[in-house]
Amino acid sequence: MIKKNYVDVEEKQATLMNGREVKDVYVRWLIDTNSGAKNFAMRRFEIKPGGIVPLHNHPEDHEIYVLSGKGKFYDDKGQQEEAKMGDVIYIPPNEKHGIDNLGKDNFVFICLIPYIKK
Amino acid sequence: MIKKNYVDVEEKQATLMNGREVKDVYVRWLIDTNSGAKNFAMRRFEIKPGGIVPLHNHPEDHEIYVLSGKGKFYDDKGQQEEAKMGDVIYIPPNEKHGIDNLGKDNFVFICLIPYIKK
Repeated sequence: MIKKNYVDVEEKQATLMNGREVKDVYVRWLIDTNSGAKNFAMRRFEIKPGGIVPLHNHPEDHEIYVLSGKGKFYDDKGQQEEAKMGDVIYIPPNEKHGIDNLGKDNFVFICLIPYIKK
Repeated sequence: MIKKNYVDVEEKQATLMNGREVKDVYVRWLIDTNSGAKNFAMRRFEIKPGGIVPLHNHPEDHEIYVLSGKGKFYDDKGQQEEAKMGDVIYIPPNEKHGIDNLGKDNFVFICLIPYIKK
């Protein structure tokens, strides 16, 4: 068993997704292959006020649990979902998705991504 | 994209793990095959005060993020880890693990488990 706190994990600034600019997004890879995980990785995101993840996609799906703040998840087909603490988002493989922080505090969530692509 | 809140998902009482009795443990399967997820499932556990998950194991690994309360994760080799909000636990495949609630409030965490076994 490995135990850590999220603050023990280095925070990195995300810069590009699908070649598009990310704004004020910070990520910690809490559990990944360095922990021995082979199936999927756990990341913790903090999007600063005004920060965005631009619309992008990839073959991996996402499982997301919102920890704090207020944000918006949207796709390229008109779906928009506001999200707050305790909200859960599933983004299927290849579906375009973007994220905005709508609040005055950081928008914080856990986002898991598989190593095995389906 | 699918969005829900954890309270929208039915809470079920866990009863047995490896044939051993679970005490006061409630689980919500937040994202699973019903949402279209093929790689791994997201569950949210609440262990009531005095509740326990007995020592058990299985081929799937666990990725855990603690949301609230105070608990203990332990194995069968003497490792014991107290855990609180923001703590992260990785339990490798087949490793025995048990969980106790050490506090007066519910011990709440997200626990992810793969569908693909490695």
